[in-house]
Amino acid sequence: MQKNQTAQIAVLAGDYIGPEIMAAGLEVLKAVSEDGKFNYQIHEEPFGGAAIDQAGDPLPAQTLATCQQSDAILLAAIGGPKWDNAEKRPEAGLLQIRKELNLFANIRPTAISEAMRQYSPIKNENPVDFVIVRELTSGIYFGTPREKTADYALDTMRYRKEEIQRITKLAFEMATKRRNHVTLVDKANVLATSKFWREIVGEIAQDYPQVNYDTSYVDAAAMKIISSPDQFDVILTENLFGDILSDESAEITGSLGTIPSMSQGSNGPALYEPIHGSAPDIAGKGIADPISMVKSVAMMLANSFDRQDLATEITNAINEVISQQVVTPDLGGHATTKEVTAAIISSIKESR
Amino acid sequence: MQKNQTAQIAVLAGDYIGPEIMAAGLEVLKAVSEDGKFNYQIHEEPFGGAAIDQAGDPLPAQTLATCQQSDAILLAAIGGPKWDNAEKRPEAGLLQIRKELNLFANIRPTAISEAMRQYSPIKNENPVDFVIVRELTSGIYFGTPREKTADYALDTMRYRKEEIQRITKLAFEMATKRRNHVTLVDKANVLATSKFWREIVGEIAQDYPQVNYDTSYVDAAAMKIISSPDQFDVILTENLFGDILSDESAEITGSLGTIPSMSQGSNGPALYEPIHGSAPDIAGKGIADPISMVKSVAMMLANSFDRQDLATEITNAINEVISQQVVTPDLGGHATTKEVTAAIISSIKESR
Ligand SMILES: CC(C)[C@H](C(=O)O)[C@@H](O)C(=O)O
Ligand SMILES: CC(C)[C@H](C(=O)O)[C@@H](O)C(=O)O
Repeated sequence: MQKNQTAQIAVLAGDYIGPEIMAAGLEVLKAVSEDGKFNYQIHEEPFGGAAIDQAGDPLPAQTLATCQQSDAILLAAIGGPKWDNAEKRPEAGLLQIRKELNLFANIRPTAISEAMRQYSPIKNENPVDFVIVRELTSGIYFGTPREKTADYALDTMRYRKEEIQRITKLAFEMATKRRNHVTLVDKANVLATSKFWREIVGEIAQDYPQVNYDTSYVDAAAMKIISSPDQFDVILTENLFGDILSDESAEITGSLGTIPSMSQGSNGPALYEPIHGSAPDIAGKGIADPISMVKSVAMMLANSFDRQDLATEITNAINEVISQQVVTPDLGGHATTKEVTAAIISSIKESR
Repeated sequence: MQKNQTAQIAVLAGDYIGPEIMAAGLEVLKAVSEDGKFNYQIHEEPFGGAAIDQAGDPLPAQTLATCQQSDAILLAAIGGPKWDNAEKRPEAGLLQIRKELNLFANIRPTAISEAMRQYSPIKNENPVDFVIVRELTSGIYFGTPREKTADYALDTMRYRKEEIQRITKLAFEMATKRRNHVTLVDKANVLATSKFWREIVGEIAQDYPQVNYDTSYVDAAAMKIISSPDQFDVILTENLFGDILSDESAEITGSLGTIPSMSQGSNGPALYEPIHGSAPDIAGKGIADPISMVKSVAMMLANSFDRQDLATEITNAINEVISQQVVTPDLGGHATTKEVTAAIISSIKESR
């Protein structure tokens, strides 16, 4: 979209703590946008369990249409025990929105900074800063046939060449803006799809001579993420491996409640969301960590609206608030969602 | 087999550090068996890369026949860069032997004891002691169709009911001899095969009212293994998830070079092997940690030959040697493979 146009933002608050942290994200967005700094309009729509309750469908047509017409999408979190036995579960809506909007690349930063080291469950002392680029609209999540009978069941992990090419290019481009290192994670000693990935990625790697390219089997990668996560820069991987390794990676930071993610396609709106779930156990208590949602807002400003300036203001404010220990219980503090949010907003205002 | 018969043991030393650690394992087996304590005969056969070099096949017919006729199989480690471009790679031999001998259950202990805590890369201070029961002869490792063309590739994750039932029973039986807790790890919010596992395991769980049964998505399990591994007792999972999670679990102990595993079927010989690979980088240097192999020998004595007494002698000796810091570089020591082996043997002899 053009600068100075009004940014259209679809807002999907979702379930359990979803609305609580979304409120925080929107408050910070409002604060950082004040005085004409950023013009936007939000469009709130039901999604996930909330949409099942309202409309019998986790992704109602109206919600999808709003997302398609928007410039970016903010999603908080969906799902929970309430809909465990629903015919179409909240998660189905998530898979469907990824597919409908062709959000083939899920990008998740994993970092352990000096300030956050205390929260990390691992002893490794080196600075960690890598990004997982996970393929999000193919593989075993969507492959057909998919069958379940009384005697057997099967899923199909399937990849087309173009699906691998487009995400590979994205990963290598990203590496050129980082530390020029791409690691392909696969199971090429067993899977046909992994051998296919290796061939295609190996070819594209030749177009990026400045990028140091290597590969790792997924089982070995699961070890390295614990023993030596500082060795990674960009991890490129298929959908299911990416699901497992990105959650493992989030865990080594020890601060799940602070990590945003972005899912994007070739064009059309990108979707920004915390990497954690809807946390039914703490919903309604007012203690959910808003930082992951606020960082998702910052990621949106930088990536969808080219406003790195505003994103930096937000991240600086978050860092200050963390260093002052105004944090929710997940980070060992006693602050509420609202207190952390207010502190972030004050910090933004003070530094202006 | 009957007690007092001569135990027939197939010995597959394999590649790189394989022969070095196998020599250690066999020396300890000899020492603990002395004075008629245990009668056995070993049958050494080529396997993996070594067998490709000798016979053009990672699992020659003769090797397979010897294994089939044995009472138990000791395997060290196979594979390495030398055979990366072989038509049939060493790993293919491993998958084939699992399938031919119907070794459907891979059992891997993960423990962090007080003595070993210093090696663990995670900060968690609670005692950790769980077992992963991984399905080993089905799923995406063996499912058909499996295709790779110029345009696409696919693998099939397929499970039959009986395949899930037999390993589930094994896992629940094991739990009754441990802490009565089974966790099924799957991706039932996405995969048809996982939904199928959940149904079947859920039914069998009802036959074990004394066992506390729960489930976890694989991505969440990858987190819990780092954040709270003490919550697990028996983890039951399918082949690919088991591959990833068992390596991740090994890593949290920080002592990969000390962990054995067992693969077993309904009848026929079980196979015992270290969980680590052939470590080409340290092969020939005489510094490979022999403990994983020596513990594999102990696991064999206890499980295939009902000789928990001898297994305990070996484990006690290993613990003593570790507490005296007679350890190889992977555990921060300066001892060689031979020195550690000799120390284990002395300790066994001294305590007799
Ligand atoms: C909820 C689930 C379907 C989803 C996935 O597996 O992709 C989630 O784990 C994620 O990573 O976004
Ligand atoms: C070598 C490889 C085929 C094998 C597997 O994936 O099963 C290994 O990683 C293992 O876990 O034994």
